[in-house]
Amino acid sequence: MIDKEKVASKFQSLQMTIIDTIEMIENKNFLHDTWQRPEGGGGTTCMLEEGKIFERAGVGYSHVKGTQLPKSASDAHPDIENRSWEAMGVSLVFHPNNPFIPTVHMNVRFFVASKNDAEDIWWFGGGMDLTPYYPYQEDVVHFHQTLKNGLDKFDRNLYPKYKHDCDEYFYLKHRDEPRGVGGIFFDDLNHFGFEKTSKLVFSIGDLFLNAYMPIVQKRKNEEFNEAERKFQLYRRGRYVEFNLLQDRGTLFGIQSKGRTESILMSMPPMVNWTYEWTPKKGSREEDLYKNYLVKKDWV
Amino acid sequence: MIDKEKVASKFQSLQMTIIDTIEMIENKNFLHDTWQRPEGGGGTTCMLEEGKIFERAGVGYSHVKGTQLPKSASDAHPDIENRSWEAMGVSLVFHPNNPFIPTVHMNVRFFVASKNDAEDIWWFGGGMDLTPYYPYQEDVVHFHQTLKNGLDKFDRNLYPKYKHDCDEYFYLKHRDEPRGVGGIFFDDLNHFGFEKTSKLVFSIGDLFLNAYMPIVQKRKNEEFNEAERKFQLYRRGRYVEFNLLQDRGTLFGIQSKGRTESILMSMPPMVNWTYEWTPKKGSREEDLYKNYLVKKDWV
Repeated sequence: MIDKEKVASKFQSLQMTIIDTIEMIENKNFLHDTWQRPEGGGGTTCMLEEGKIFERAGVGYSHVKGTQLPKSASDAHPDIENRSWEAMGVSLVFHPNNPFIPTVHMNVRFFVASKNDAEDIWWFGGGMDLTPYYPYQEDVVHFHQTLKNGLDKFDRNLYPKYKHDCDEYFYLKHRDEPRGVGGIFFDDLNHFGFEKTSKLVFSIGDLFLNAYMPIVQKRKNEEFNEAERKFQLYRRGRYVEFNLLQDRGTLFGIQSKGRTESILMSMPPMVNWTYEWTPKKGSREEDLYKNYLVKKDWV
Repeated sequence: MIDKEKVASKFQSLQMTIIDTIEMIENKNFLHDTWQRPEGGGGTTCMLEEGKIFERAGVGYSHVKGTQLPKSASDAHPDIENRSWEAMGVSLVFHPNNPFIPTVHMNVRFFVASKNDAEDIWWFGGGMDLTPYYPYQEDVVHFHQTLKNGLDKFDRNLYPKYKHDCDEYFYLKHRDEPRGVGGIFFDDLNHFGFEKTSKLVFSIGDLFLNAYMPIVQKRKNEEFNEAERKFQLYRRGRYVEFNLLQDRGTLFGIQSKGRTESILMSMPPMVNWTYEWTPKKGSREEDLYKNYLVKKDWV
C-alpha cells in the first residue's frame, strides 16, 4: 500500500534540512510563505534573496490536489484521464551571486491518480542538475560522482540511465544546446514497488547537499569581474528560456493554475539578453561551450 | 488575385523606414543580419543595442516557407493541414533605457496556405501595443487616438474590435494581469478581400511611427533614479513571461524551427525577478497597476 502521509512528511523534512543548512552559511533567514490553492491543497514556498552567497534561492514544498488533470500531464499519460490527482514534491533552484558557483536545481516529487473501484496509479519523479558559468572539471566530476555513488547502492544500472535521461531532458531544442552539465533525471518511477522506490527517492533528496555544497564552499571566495558577471547574466537567459518554453513542471504548474510566484521562484534574479553573443576564441567562455555544454561522461 | 510580391516589398520598405527613423535619432546604425532558413525562406533581422534611447531595439523582416505546418498554427486552423505555407511579416520590439518611455511592439504579417487544385487560403494579422512602466495618461491616449484615427478612415467598427482583441490577447493568464495598456490586435483578416485588406494592413504599419515616436520625444530626457530603473527591470519580467509562455508568434517561430536569435529579439536586454514584489500604497508603481493595467477605454 502506498503511504502518502509518509512521503509528504519526508518531503517536508527534506525542505527544512536544506533551508537550515543554507541559513547557517548565509546567516540570514528564508522568508516562509504558506499558501492554499483554491482548487485544493497548498504548500510552503521558502525564499532567500540578496544573500551573501545566493542572489536568489528558492525551496518550495507543495502538495496540490485536483479533479481534472491539466493537458501537460494527461498528454503523457492517457491512462489517467478522468481521475482525481495529488501531486507533492520539493523543488529548489539556487542562483548564486558568484559566477564561479554553478546554478543548481533539485526536485523530488510524487504523483497519485485515483478513481473509485480502481487501484491508484502512482509514480515518483525528480532529479538534480548543475548549470555552471565558469566550470571547473573537478566540481562537475564531484557532483556526478556523488550522485553515482548514491545510486549505485541501490542498483548500478540507475546512474547511467538517469544521467542519460537528464541530458535528454535538460536540452534546449531551439538553441541545440544542453542547459548545463546535467546530473540525474527520472520520471514515471514505480517499478521497484512503493517501499523501495520511495526509499530511493528520499535518498536522492538526501544527496543534494553533499553533491552541491562542497562546490559552493570551494568557489564562494573567488574574485570575479564585470565581464564575468555579465556572462553569468547572459547565460541565465538560457535558464529562463528552458523553464518557460520546455520545463514540464513549470508548464504543469502554470496550466493547473498553480501559484505563480511559487512556480516562478526558479527564475533568476537578474538576466541579460544580448543579440548573437558568441564567445571569443580561447576564452573561458568558449571553454564552457566547447568542453562542458556537450554530452559527456563525467565519471 | 493575391500578390505576394507586393506584400513582401511593402513589408520590407516598412522595415527600412522605421530603421531609418531610429538611426537618425540614435545617431547609430542597426546591425543587419540576413539569414536563410534551411527548410525554406529567410529574413533580415536588424538590431540596435546600447543606444542613447533604446537599450535594445529589434526590427525583423522574415519570409519563411514550409511544407508542413507547426502545431501552433494548425491547431487554430484545421482547414490548412497538409498545405504548404508561406508566412511573411515585420515584427519589432523596442526596449528603451528610460523607464518613462514605454516598451512598444508592432507586427504586421501575411500568411498563405496552398494546395494543388485548390484556392489559396490567406489572411493578414498584426497590431501594436504599448507597455509602460511609469505611464502618462496623455501618452496612452495619444497612442490609442492615433490608432483609432487611422482605422476610422477604413471603417469605424475596426478600432473598437481590434482594441478589444488586443486586450484579450495581451493578457497574462497566470498573473491575471494585462501586459500593458494595449493597442490593436487582429488576426485571420481577409473578409475585405485582398486589395482592401492589404491596404488596411500597410496603413497600420505606417501608423507606428506616429503612434510611438512622439512619446519617445516627450519622455527621453526625463531623469530617473535607481528605484525606477529597478521597477522597469522587474516589469520587463512580465514581457518575458508573456512572450515565452503565451505569444503565438514566438511559439510558432520556435516550433517551426525558426531562427532563435531573430525570434527572441523581443527579449528585454536586462530583466529582474523578485519574489512577491508589491507596490507601495500611493506610489507611482501602484498607479500603474491600479489605473493602467486594467481594461479601460482610452479614447
